[in-house]
Amino acid sequence: MLAHVRSGKNGAVTSIERSLDPSVAELLKRDAAGLVTAVIQQWDTREVLMVGWMDDEALRRTLTSGRTTFYSRSRGEYWVKGETSGHWQWVKEVRLDCDGDTLLVSVDADGAACHTGDRTCFDARVLPLSRGGVAR
Amino acid sequence: MLAHVRSGKNGAVTSIERSLDPSVAELLKRDAAGLVTAVIQQWDTREVLMVGWMDDEALRRTLTSGRTTFYSRSRGEYWVKGETSGHWQWVKEVRLDCDGDTLLVSVDADGAACHTGDRTCFDARVLPLSRGGVAR
Repeated sequence: MLAHVRSGKNGAVTSIERSLDPSVAELLKRDAAGLVTAVIQQWDTREVLMVGWMDDEALRRTLTSGRTTFYSRSRGEYWVKGETSGHWQWVKEVRLDCDGDTLLVSVDADGAACHTGDRTCFDARVLPLSRGGVAR
Repeated sequence: MLAHVRSGKNGAVTSIERSLDPSVAELLKRDAAGLVTAVIQQWDTREVLMVGWMDDEALRRTLTSGRTTFYSRSRGEYWVKGETSGHWQWVKEVRLDCDGDTLLVSVDADGAACHTGDRTCFDARVLPLSRGGVAR
């Protein structure tokens, strides 16, 4: 299905698809809300930056726009990482796991991933291990 | 609340807690099924190995046993990674994200993380990018 049109570099009008590629869509195992989990990882340092949620449309936008796009469960709307902060996440690779319910998105992040200003959403809180970590 | 007892190295009986530490439990923002997302990352290579789900009890077992324990949404039961495959994940650190709904568990993995035998659950499928990756 075709929807939007945009001008290419040479001025020609190019059609882009409105729906997620059916060959990708058929691989997804969505939850009851139609979402899959998206783990966002910095491509070179391999830091896990954040985890968000995508439905088919958010994944389509992520795959076609080059920037991560999520679906907010609390707000019920799409959001592009960086649209308010300027901290874009430029997509380098998207992988799907064996179950089809989780994406691993490799990105090059501009600045902080966390809304708190931290580099990652996991910087602030370490939970206590009762046995002091690795048991061997 | 105390439940199990076990023998310490010196033969003394040691009590361990049955419930998740309340100071941890109060930080969690669980989904409708009582679960949080758990991203499992190899501590040294920083590969994202897999994503699973934990409720309070699975997290308690992960923090206290030194091995990752998950709650299976499909089977409705707890499972310890490695209990059938021998591919244990030894817990080195557990972090909670800013929202309280996702854990990042740093582990030292024995062998394959994926039930297919792959090193990670993300090895097999790369999704096509329509714009060829990074746009800048």
